[in-house]
Amino acid sequence: MFILITNDDGIQSPGIICLADELSTLGEIVVVAPDRERSAVGHALTLHAPLRADEIRSGWYAVDGMPTDCVNLGIHGLIKRTPDLVVSGINRGGNLGDDITYSGTVAAAMEATLMGVPAFAISLVEGPYGYADFKPAARVAHGLSRLIATHGLPRDTFFNVNVPPGDPGEAVITRQGKRRYEDLVVENVDPRGRTYYWIGGGKPGFEDQAGTDFHAIEKGKTSLTPLHLDLTNYRAMEELHNWPLGALDV
Amino acid sequence: MFILITNDDGIQSPGIICLADELSTLGEIVVVAPDRERSAVGHALTLHAPLRADEIRSGWYAVDGMPTDCVNLGIHGLIKRTPDLVVSGINRGGNLGDDITYSGTVAAAMEATLMGVPAFAISLVEGPYGYADFKPAARVAHGLSRLIATHGLPRDTFFNVNVPPGDPGEAVITRQGKRRYEDLVVENVDPRGRTYYWIGGGKPGFEDQAGTDFHAIEKGKTSLTPLHLDLTNYRAMEELHNWPLGALDV
Amino acid sequence: MFILITNDDGIQSPGIICLADELSTLGEIVVVAPDRERSAVGHALTLHAPLRADEIRSGWYAVDGMPTDCVNLGIHGLIKRTPDLVVSGINRGGNLGDDITYSGTVAAAMEATLMGVPAFAISLVEGPYGYADFKPAARVAHGLSRLIATHGLPRDTFFNVNVPPGDPGEAVITRQGKRRYEDLVVENVDPRGRTYYWIGGGKPGFEDQAGTDFHAIEKGKTSLTPLHLDLTNYRAMEELHNWPLGALDV
Amino acid sequence: MFILITNDDGIQSPGIICLADELSTLGEIVVVAPDRERSAVGHALTLHAPLRADEIRSGWYAVDGMPTDCVNLGIHGLIKRTPDLVVSGINRGGNLGDDITYSGTVAAAMEATLMGVPAFAISLVEGPYGYADFKPAARVAHGLSRLIATHGLPRDTFFNVNVPPGDPGEAVITRQGKRRYEDLVVENVDPRGRTYYWIGGGKPGFEDQAGTDFHAIEKGKTSLTPLHLDLTNYRAMEELHNWPLGALDV
Repeated sequence: MFILITNDDGIQSPGIICLADELSTLGEIVVVAPDRERSAVGHALTLHAPLRADEIRSGWYAVDGMPTDCVNLGIHGLIKRTPDLVVSGINRGGNLGDDITYSGTVAAAMEATLMGVPAFAISLVEGPYGYADFKPAARVAHGLSRLIATHGLPRDTFFNVNVPPGDPGEAVITRQGKRRYEDLVVENVDPRGRTYYWIGGGKPGFEDQAGTDFHAIEKGKTSLTPLHLDLTNYRAMEELHNWPLGALDV
Repeated sequence: MFILITNDDGIQSPGIICLADELSTLGEIVVVAPDRERSAVGHALTLHAPLRADEIRSGWYAVDGMPTDCVNLGIHGLIKRTPDLVVSGINRGGNLGDDITYSGTVAAAMEATLMGVPAFAISLVEGPYGYADFKPAARVAHGLSRLIATHGLPRDTFFNVNVPPGDPGEAVITRQGKRRYEDLVVENVDPRGRTYYWIGGGKPGFEDQAGTDFHAIEKGKTSLTPLHLDLTNYRAMEELHNWPLGALDV
Repeated sequence: MFILITNDDGIQSPGIICLADELSTLGEIVVVAPDRERSAVGHALTLHAPLRADEIRSGWYAVDGMPTDCVNLGIHGLIKRTPDLVVSGINRGGNLGDDITYSGTVAAAMEATLMGVPAFAISLVEGPYGYADFKPAARVAHGLSRLIATHGLPRDTFFNVNVPPGDPGEAVITRQGKRRYEDLVVENVDPRGRTYYWIGGGKPGFEDQAGTDFHAIEKGKTSLTPLHLDLTNYRAMEELHNWPLGALDV
Repeated sequence: MFILITNDDGIQSPGIICLADELSTLGEIVVVAPDRERSAVGHALTLHAPLRADEIRSGWYAVDGMPTDCVNLGIHGLIKRTPDLVVSGINRGGNLGDDITYSGTVAAAMEATLMGVPAFAISLVEGPYGYADFKPAARVAHGLSRLIATHGLPRDTFFNVNVPPGDPGEAVITRQGKRRYEDLVVENVDPRGRTYYWIGGGKPGFEDQAGTDFHAIEKGKTSLTPLHLDLTNYRAMEELHNWPLGALDV
């Protein structure tokens, strides 16, 4: 089994090192990851600037780009060979509910899926985040990689895996939950008197519905959400077929 | 009607100016958009750095951030009032099929939806991209804004609108199509002898299936795809319930 | 006379537009300037990334780089012809005393000098900074350009010109003054609880010595300081010849 | 003796690690250096964005800024105590002649001088650049630090030290030499058909004059150039006193 590993916390983070150690027992691995933290970057792709890759040790490439770039550049530019699996993580913090749309960790698995390569993203929901703390999640990644090797993944689908801190508990298939946002923008003035703004700081909550990723984590279980890239709201399509779209003819 | 307008081509692009001119006849508008081009940035959110906003003319704010930042900062930091509608565009080039996951234009509408604000993203599929060329799409935006004001949008749903060049044709409800990728990474050497890589350059195609956004555009129609933020592949969930997940217990 | 014009406030700033208008009466001009503000960048040169140039109107090139890059790229890449003179400015704010080492405006003139092209940097010491406010300084630039055309500049030397607000007064040859620093670093915490620091905010003063640039400005005069790129402290060299350098043999 | 150490190659580079090891025998050290390579940045100061500092191990701070920022933030924000000496380096490659105006290594020593703190910049002229290769230059730094502790530095003056590869040879006081430039801009087209430019690639030479830094290195000696921040060309001042400056009155 030939596995490409990436993340969005950067190639030096203990989460990816622990993951690579664990997956290297399954065959050959290559690590292509950002040279620094690139979180909350979403499915960003670097189109207008060149990328650099530095092989910092054998089979470990540090890239000055986004997680999405790492998958793309890794497969098409650096190793020039399609991996059997792409694993992205282990992320420092959960990627749950609607927040996955911001996640660089999830975006890397998304990119692999677009290329037709089986993939999953894996995150450790709570700290501490030392090397040893990632070990249980790394073992989940190990087991899931073997399952995927045996059973394959449903077409155009990848897993978003979230592991609770400590004991990973039972693994369950979930659906994406829903966040409740409480947004906040902090306004401040710099030493030269110019205003600046800082997004964030609100305390996020979630709608506690059975079957969701949030709910599984709340119960101390490992959540596996099968995702695809189709954002179409099929249910809404029916409702919309009654709309007077003729009004749009211009 | 109070409308917040943003885009990912930058606040100086003719697409957003044309859109703002057209929508200003519907009530009050405010424009909060990136100060330069920010395409292919996905649903990126600036969490680790502050943002600046410069009111370049009355009600037009140029922000040194991403489209997602503009919606967030606009609503919570600059205008401190929830708009009735967020419109993102008019983008220079289509946002079709799986490519919408990269799109900053679509991400801005996604962010509004997360905040509970009705929204749509709108793109002109092909150039030329002068001010006048955006006029038909701007009129589609005008009509759609009125429809949404009357009928509301399905819960947690936003529209991704793509308009063909010239005559927008009939407007149809579509689902998200599927791209066929032909990726390419160009490798080169800089004047100091260091290797660099450039992603892209492959010619994308699409799977021509009836009912998709691609298909509508191919037929010269305006495509309206209702999107939500739920990436769960519900069909795959059933299939996966037979998986031996017990193997993951570590 | 063929003049290349640049600055560090960005190609849209009124200072460079006013300067270009005034100097265009002397012959042919070309403007190659940063696409956004690039102040306090010093003599930075972009070696590890490529540069883009966008001809925003005939003979006006916006570059996504530093002032130093603009001179280099302008002469060797865009116009491929050596200008008779490089003028950098008109800067929004003075470049006086030791602060010139940080200045992008001064660095551009430095770069031209390294290439053997006569050059000067010009700054308006105090605001307001509307188009009309730059007019007197632009006329000083006009006069100085003509003087340089007639008399030439001393070898390897360029001028750093500072103009007081309003009436430029008499023009005098000065030496570089000395700043008194009162530094300040502001420490703060972002919405996610991470510490950040902001340099600056101290109120700078200067040592009020006759003959310096500061002194000329204080008296309402225009200051012309002849600069070279030789930072050697020749006076110190003598003193140091008595040092027991043998102690360094390792 | 309390020494602050910085560089422009980044806090992970072997040059700074070797330097810190050697200077730690002289008393207490603190390292405040960029978190990644920041060469050719000149005397750039980050005024319009905040800085982060990460204490990666005890007394070693990685800063997401420029060398100049490191000195400023280190002294005023992080350690809040004035060091007895600032040492910048050991740089990978020489900082000779006019090139020092671009150098981040030299700029850091410049910044310390502006704050009234004794300082020197030190560079290893040629590779290889492994940890052990920096050892002779680190011993020169050790010896020079002791000399400065004993004798002090001339007022407002800092040293720019260049060490040849291998045996550092005799140490001599020099003046700044002069480069001969042969510039080159490479023009290319990216995968999306947009032109880009890359500065550099020309082979630099120098004017071989006795007494210069270039000349000392050429002879296998260690070069110590006393620099100050006064760029005034005093010789030119006399010549210019004959200029008809009255022509500038506007």
